[in-house]
Amino acid sequence: MMDYPLLIRSMLERGRLVAADQEIVSRDFHGVMRYTMREMYARVCQLAHALDRLGVKPHEHIGSFAWNNHRHLELYFAVPCSQRVLHTINIRLFTEQLVYIINHAEDRLIFIDEDLLPVMEGIADRLPLVERFVVMTDAPELPATTLKNALLYEDLIRSEKTEYAFPDFDEWTTAILGYTSATTGMPKGVEYSHRGLFLHCMMALVGELGVRESDVSMPIVPMFHVNAWGRPLADTWIGAKQVYPGSRPTAKDFCELIDRERVTYSAGVPTVWMGILQHLKANPGVYDVSSVRCLLSGGSALPQSLVEVYEKELGIPMYQGYGQTETTPITFISYPKKKHQNLQGAERYRIRAKTGHIVPGLEMRLLDPDGKPVPYDGKSMGELLLRGPWVLRSYYKDPEKTRDAFSDGWFRTGDIATMDDEGYLQVVDRTRDLIKSGGEWISSVDLENVIMGHPDVLEAAVIAVPHERWQERPIVCVVLRPEASDKVSKDDILKYFEGRVAKWWIPDDVIFVTEIPKTSVGKFSKKTLREQYQSGVL
Amino acid sequence: MMDYPLLIRSMLERGRLVAADQEIVSRDFHGVMRYTMREMYARVCQLAHALDRLGVKPHEHIGSFAWNNHRHLELYFAVPCSQRVLHTINIRLFTEQLVYIINHAEDRLIFIDEDLLPVMEGIADRLPLVERFVVMTDAPELPATTLKNALLYEDLIRSEKTEYAFPDFDEWTTAILGYTSATTGMPKGVEYSHRGLFLHCMMALVGELGVRESDVSMPIVPMFHVNAWGRPLADTWIGAKQVYPGSRPTAKDFCELIDRERVTYSAGVPTVWMGILQHLKANPGVYDVSSVRCLLSGGSALPQSLVEVYEKELGIPMYQGYGQTETTPITFISYPKKKHQNLQGAERYRIRAKTGHIVPGLEMRLLDPDGKPVPYDGKSMGELLLRGPWVLRSYYKDPEKTRDAFSDGWFRTGDIATMDDEGYLQVVDRTRDLIKSGGEWISSVDLENVIMGHPDVLEAAVIAVPHERWQERPIVCVVLRPEASDKVSKDDILKYFEGRVAKWWIPDDVIFVTEIPKTSVGKFSKKTLREQYQSGVL
Repeated sequence: MMDYPLLIRSMLERGRLVAADQEIVSRDFHGVMRYTMREMYARVCQLAHALDRLGVKPHEHIGSFAWNNHRHLELYFAVPCSQRVLHTINIRLFTEQLVYIINHAEDRLIFIDEDLLPVMEGIADRLPLVERFVVMTDAPELPATTLKNALLYEDLIRSEKTEYAFPDFDEWTTAILGYTSATTGMPKGVEYSHRGLFLHCMMALVGELGVRESDVSMPIVPMFHVNAWGRPLADTWIGAKQVYPGSRPTAKDFCELIDRERVTYSAGVPTVWMGILQHLKANPGVYDVSSVRCLLSGGSALPQSLVEVYEKELGIPMYQGYGQTETTPITFISYPKKKHQNLQGAERYRIRAKTGHIVPGLEMRLLDPDGKPVPYDGKSMGELLLRGPWVLRSYYKDPEKTRDAFSDGWFRTGDIATMDDEGYLQVVDRTRDLIKSGGEWISSVDLENVIMGHPDVLEAAVIAVPHERWQERPIVCVVLRPEASDKVSKDDILKYFEGRVAKWWIPDDVIFVTEIPKTSVGKFSKKTLREQYQSGVL
Repeated sequence: MMDYPLLIRSMLERGRLVAADQEIVSRDFHGVMRYTMREMYARVCQLAHALDRLGVKPHEHIGSFAWNNHRHLELYFAVPCSQRVLHTINIRLFTEQLVYIINHAEDRLIFIDEDLLPVMEGIADRLPLVERFVVMTDAPELPATTLKNALLYEDLIRSEKTEYAFPDFDEWTTAILGYTSATTGMPKGVEYSHRGLFLHCMMALVGELGVRESDVSMPIVPMFHVNAWGRPLADTWIGAKQVYPGSRPTAKDFCELIDRERVTYSAGVPTVWMGILQHLKANPGVYDVSSVRCLLSGGSALPQSLVEVYEKELGIPMYQGYGQTETTPITFISYPKKKHQNLQGAERYRIRAKTGHIVPGLEMRLLDPDGKPVPYDGKSMGELLLRGPWVLRSYYKDPEKTRDAFSDGWFRTGDIATMDDEGYLQVVDRTRDLIKSGGEWISSVDLENVIMGHPDVLEAAVIAVPHERWQERPIVCVVLRPEASDKVSKDDILKYFEGRVAKWWIPDDVIFVTEIPKTSVGKFSKKTLREQYQSGVL
């Protein structure tokens, strides 16, 4: 077969060819704008010419500091297709982390959304390598800014040609550079190659959960976080209508976009779905969400109770995807088999809340602490190791962390899981979040899933605290629904576990909190909780 | 990203992992057998061990001479996953072609279905390189045969271990070797790499026409012809139930299997669908075909009238796939866009009878005879050129034919097509089947599609005959329905074209024949027709 490189260009060119009139909708700083795939293609070409004019060399790193919007989409194509590297900077990182990754990535040019200027202005004097900033706004003139060499995006591209001869090059070339959200230590860089993204995005088009031309796709998962799970690339490839929720989107914005644009497909983290659910419940009859055919949830474990309430109360099927920054990200998806599709009651939702089947293209192992494969009996726990064309080879400029992350050519996910005889993986916990009690493991995720089913509980996180006799014991931090805050006691919470988990798994204490701290991408930050509560030895 | 090779092993391993209990049904020589993916996997491992025991070296060629059945499926995995090459010999080739390709491929071992023994026995003394034959049968003992060193398949694998450590190797390694069906000259060899098949089969899982776990897939297109369009590999990968129609299947066999196994998806050539339609009409109420959710038709142009009758009379949507032996094969698929889905009347079927949209992963050009791109206006004709990861690099051991088939790194399909502004390709004709009349082109395919809509016409083929003034003129060869054979005249046929095509396109003559000659894979053999009728200069 031909030595034809697997490049992102292929996705862009096909999208333009088969779906030139397809709409792309972007909730912009000053309203909702819409244009066609044909116009997007023309602007991508203009941007690529502009990068040439600025003298950006092949393989140089260009930062994006932006929300999910149409200009960010243009960067997703123009930068890698012209053989540069797009560093999608996570706008929610803390200042120290931002300074670290921008310098570590050696970004020389950064594209920045208008409303994020203050963040960048605050750290610009600590970014000696950055030579220029391009401000993305609908405003006709450059906003006042202290950033040096600032240009207006629209000025930059306006006069350029609307066709560009995107070159052929090696498929192993890096297209996008992303950093982990750093639940421990400083963020680690992961280089996504054209080949890896091509294969990942084709996989993301497979089956019932793959986006189709007939879909209206709204990627909620940020474009600054793991390639927005590949959606902007894959949606363009297949020619679907795309809806970008833009700057600082709220649950209200999501609901309005779903209603008005007739969104059929979306992907995001569980906390987003919880927020949307609350907003819909607080505003009954206001939004029509009947267009949605499926929601994909990932980033942290999907509570079975959430799957259930979405289907029963909204008629919307929700499925779980699983993956990591290191895996582009998708590695498992929970989709019921044919024989499961008519299941009723709890069994129905249990399947969908599982971590899922390994996606086509990857290979897995579950190993016990001695490195031996565990049986696939649905009970035996082992660490999940992965191989595949969209699994990282090494961390960017970080040989030490790379060494720890691999074993015999396999990537160690750090997640503990079981595998049943139907091929469904169930991630039990992060290695570091497992509670080691009396020589046995307790899954914090299992306990959280149970207590999130309590009608008065809004959010909950389980952490280990040191224990003199048992080494560690679980405690549960609980956020109650506002209307229930007076009437639920610690005992009520603990009683709820009875009969639902083994007796020795029941947490030793309950701490009521007003909020579970989150990481920059909306996951529960157990690190922060541990720092707050772990000092009290039980 | 990891340097992880794209290998067929990945499909097999995932299928076993996520769908071990899934059924595989094979219409065998002595009835219908069924087993699970788990059992298939075990036998694939046994077969790989047996090949080791026989001393077959890496990269050696192993021939299969077989129908679509479970043992052929085992060969599809065991041979390439253990780094040998499966040469899928087209059982319908003529004797001279068979001798040529088996010697050209240098097959040393051939696996052969019991009922095909006589064919092979007739040519065995002209195959000096073949050392051994393995006979595939349900019979407990080796049938009487003159073949030297004949073994029984079941004896060969019986005592082997049911696990095999399939190795890692280069993804560019050849997995399957196939030959064209040779509408002109001797068949040409095409080497399908693991990488090419991996990418092609993932593409074949994309979208509405991709097979899903919930499907029951019956590949009618032969496994000895272009990898059965990738279905056995892709169906295993996704974990669908598979139904193999076995030896010498008739329309009755297909209808029975659809009914009994609840087939949802199938792929084959138009002549097969015509045969099934006739059988269903002749036996009203006998078969329940309501399980079918889609049929994919390819190999030759799909008449719009057939799409229409399948949907209106059987409630079955039929779509067109397009491709070639040289392209693994699928390159275009006709699927209506969202905006086309509620079209009514002829427009509805017109879209589905188009050649289609280019599939994700490939790149195309339409060039005029001077090598200039033609406009995508739905009218301008150009030769279709293709590039992509599952397009051939060269013909096997045939530098001369390779040279003619490529232009500037692009594969010249030899097909003339138009492209409209919705991205739908329409193949107008083969370069050699176009009729050059007075300096203009007439499409034989367009004329055939028109006349196939005539209620009394069963089959029709249009060929060019030399003409003194116009250089070439079309004549049409027509097979009438048996019940209409007395009442339709040449004039009736010619009148039917009036108003449906330009006046100067109307054929100069009609020849009534009892059958349109077919190639070994069921396509109309215009070469044979031309030999019969072209001598008469008009």
